[in-house]
Amino acid sequence: MGAVKTKRMPRAVREQQMLDAAVEIFGRRGYMAASMDEIAELAGVSKPLVYLYLNSKEDLFTACIRREAQALVAAVRSGVRTDLPADRQLWDGLLAFFAHTGRHPHAWSVLHLQARTHGETFAAEVTAMREEIVAFVTQLIVVAAREAHRDPDLPEREVAGLAEALVGAAESLAAWANTHESVTPRQAATTLMNFAWSGLADLMEGNAWTPPEG
Amino acid sequence: MGAVKTKRMPRAVREQQMLDAAVEIFGRRGYMAASMDEIAELAGVSKPLVYLYLNSKEDLFTACIRREAQALVAAVRSGVRTDLPADRQLWDGLLAFFAHTGRHPHAWSVLHLQARTHGETFAAEVTAMREEIVAFVTQLIVVAAREAHRDPDLPEREVAGLAEALVGAAESLAAWANTHESVTPRQAATTLMNFAWSGLADLMEGNAWTPPEG
Repeated sequence: MGAVKTKRMPRAVREQQMLDAAVEIFGRRGYMAASMDEIAELAGVSKPLVYLYLNSKEDLFTACIRREAQALVAAVRSGVRTDLPADRQLWDGLLAFFAHTGRHPHAWSVLHLQARTHGETFAAEVTAMREEIVAFVTQLIVVAAREAHRDPDLPEREVAGLAEALVGAAESLAAWANTHESVTPRQAATTLMNFAWSGLADLMEGNAWTPPEG
Repeated sequence: MGAVKTKRMPRAVREQQMLDAAVEIFGRRGYMAASMDEIAELAGVSKPLVYLYLNSKEDLFTACIRREAQALVAAVRSGVRTDLPADRQLWDGLLAFFAHTGRHPHAWSVLHLQARTHGETFAAEVTAMREEIVAFVTQLIVVAAREAHRDPDLPEREVAGLAEALVGAAESLAAWANTHESVTPRQAATTLMNFAWSGLADLMEGNAWTPPEG
């Protein structure tokens, strides 16, 4: 009876169920320790069917990274309205980011940890996503600088560094929020805005921090 | 002749050479792809000698993580004078951090990437180090709040979140600086101070960023 039921399901739907199961197991166990048996069992299909659809553990992992990276970028993008002021865009983007990583902790573990250390192919998938997010943040900082009429004082490399710092801070807070149940997406986003945006606002007004000599 | 020369070297010195080679290979290739053959060759010893001294690939990797975590924490600690103002301590600590990660990129790759995704044992080693650094930064923020007489307004969880954000930003900038040769430790530290300290300073003065309703 199970087999009959299974046969009625379109391939695309079944594939998504396999990916759902795979993301959970890869996120829980790590890429190396994850077993195809457990993934198939959680997906409610046979192991040969997983291989038939997704070919290999490597391909399955790549498909997981690709789907989850696209989902995360889409969540952030859809949270942001580009006609609003830069700080509001950043707030909305951070809120969407922390809401998504909080709702999908295993996906976040796959992207943030697993995908980065199991070979160049996997790392390249997630690097592309990260660069897209860094570019988005860079753009926000450039817009904020333009709004504050400070373009010439903020060199390109400084902006790139600020964007890297902000994305790194968000990544770290996402992992922290996911291990502290009481931290809501809104709280994580507020912390980061307090931390970062006030500093950026100072910077736009020309109040840079002055390093000591030497 | 090589064997005679090898024999004269004290075990402790030889072990450090093996760890030097292992950190470089683990950092370059990743934990899984790293081969004990290549490590032994780079260390200029036989593979059986590596196993005799360090027991297994797992133990060798653990020894690498432990040594490099201690070296990084020691570098940051020795860069900081606790009798100076909080912002100066943070600056000195960041400078020491970026100088160390810049001088030891493979060690940083082992700690930041490799150690976190190949099982609980390895991850626990690096988590302990990271917690020590987060505690140090948390303490600096508390001291800064006290200097600004703002203790009651900055709840413990907010401080913890700010410290996580700052450490995450530093981690991200370290990886960025290591892939951009023109970025010096001083530049990376300045970027982060501009980004973070100015924001924190605002926060101490009670100028929190106000999230929109909803």
